[in-house]
Amino acid sequence: MQTHLDCIPCFLHQSLEAARMAVDDEILNEQVMKEVMKYLLTIDFSFSPPEISKEVHRIIKQVTGVNDPYITVKKKANEHAKNQIPILQKMIEDSDDALLMAAKLSIIGNVVDFGTINRFNVEEMIDNIAHKPFDHKGYAVFKKRLENASSILYLADNTGEVIFDFLLIEQLAKMKKNITYVVKSNPIINDATEDDALFAGIDRYATIMKGDDGQTFSSPGMVLKYGSDEFLDALDAADMVISKGQGNYESLSMVDREVFFLLMVKCPLVANDIGINVGTMVLKVKT
Amino acid sequence: MQTHLDCIPCFLHQSLEAARMAVDDEILNEQVMKEVMKYLLTIDFSFSPPEISKEVHRIIKQVTGVNDPYITVKKKANEHAKNQIPILQKMIEDSDDALLMAAKLSIIGNVVDFGTINRFNVEEMIDNIAHKPFDHKGYAVFKKRLENASSILYLADNTGEVIFDFLLIEQLAKMKKNITYVVKSNPIINDATEDDALFAGIDRYATIMKGDDGQTFSSPGMVLKYGSDEFLDALDAADMVISKGQGNYESLSMVDREVFFLLMVKCPLVANDIGINVGTMVLKVKT
Repeated sequence: MQTHLDCIPCFLHQSLEAARMAVDDEILNEQVMKEVMKYLLTIDFSFSPPEISKEVHRIIKQVTGVNDPYITVKKKANEHAKNQIPILQKMIEDSDDALLMAAKLSIIGNVVDFGTINRFNVEEMIDNIAHKPFDHKGYAVFKKRLENASSILYLADNTGEVIFDFLLIEQLAKMKKNITYVVKSNPIINDATEDDALFAGIDRYATIMKGDDGQTFSSPGMVLKYGSDEFLDALDAADMVISKGQGNYESLSMVDREVFFLLMVKCPLVANDIGINVGTMVLKVKT
Repeated sequence: MQTHLDCIPCFLHQSLEAARMAVDDEILNEQVMKEVMKYLLTIDFSFSPPEISKEVHRIIKQVTGVNDPYITVKKKANEHAKNQIPILQKMIEDSDDALLMAAKLSIIGNVVDFGTINRFNVEEMIDNIAHKPFDHKGYAVFKKRLENASSILYLADNTGEVIFDFLLIEQLAKMKKNITYVVKSNPIINDATEDDALFAGIDRYATIMKGDDGQTFSSPGMVLKYGSDEFLDALDAADMVISKGQGNYESLSMVDREVFFLLMVKCPLVANDIGINVGTMVLKVKT
């Protein structure tokens, strides 16, 4: 997906949020905003938003001197989500279709996101799960593909959400799948890194892989040109790819293979690209 | 009120909206966004948001070549509001305190605004008027001041809202007040100009005055340094000043005289400055 003019205010909104999380210094924050604007004056709109965002957050880190502005909110998101596990597990056990419920909950986990302006309340989402709009036209193919898939590449999105992913991965593990869980090499917004995957216990069922090359700053969404060789090989070879979140959708919506996108639509441009309303949970297969 | 870093994404959001209303040309719109960012790199944050906004909209007009991007939505807002008059008049007639109801409705009229990100539905507001949060601690002083005031300077805000102002001014006229209704000289966002005041029939009860000097572009909020001599004299001499909307609050919150601010709080920074929540109707006296 390409970057739109509408992304400019959004990048700047997020820059200010990140800068303020990093430092309590409005003079430095003003410098962040100015440096980000200078960069935004130069961007190529054919690049995907995660690619632009990568540089935006590099600037924020450089100006503030803080490598991981979201560290506190990420920790809270993980702990908060972990407390929900008994409720979530019961919902899966009580469900007629455990796989569908686990998939649905993993999408609800995608609500835990500091990367977009429109936010949703995760508890409220869980409480009202039956009434929330859920476009799961891709689920029949998802289930069918799972029958024959041996290897699954699962692209993580956010901290907090990793706990919800754990529950879906648990279902996949019951089907004896060989699962690889792809995280970011370096902190970027509130995206999950290796530590978060380990916190969620995902290593119990899956191999944890760093998706980007680690030589550069990570981007919020797996941008192929920065992918590690290991990741690019796995993306090519996996029987099935499950991609979580908007960032991965934005960077992989044009990739040349089948991908199952599981996400909560939070941004009107992503909504427009998918052809669905903001606030909808989506399980979409891209062929 | 001074400009905050938070205003930057908001100015850019509004710039894109205005540019897209002006022209159907994303290349020109990209140029608007870039020129506005270049300007925002240079601003003095001690200036009020309306003063910055004045230049932002000058740039939009210059790049797009369109002097009044909001002309269509302004016309619609006026016509739409005019259709509400019978309902509104009945609400005032049926009320125990016609003045308070008219003041409250004039604040609800301030919902009709394209200048802020947070928008509210005016019909929904009218339907639920009894349940909407309304901070009218200033009303007792407002009423008391009206008893002795002979001249009232009433600062307009938006199109559409002018119709609601007409109804409050009608109440003031019944008290035999000498009313001056201040509008902008030139189109700026969806702010009311002389034509809008005439459309609302305000000239039946009030003298219509252009508040800014007309030599420059108008700003969305009466910035004193651009005020016409006539306006500045009237601001000094009036027994009572009624100021509508956020823009006028932002530019006049520090003025050296008593002002009654009637507004709907739509922006978190204005909310913070007043010490009230977004979505609250306010009748506040500044001494």
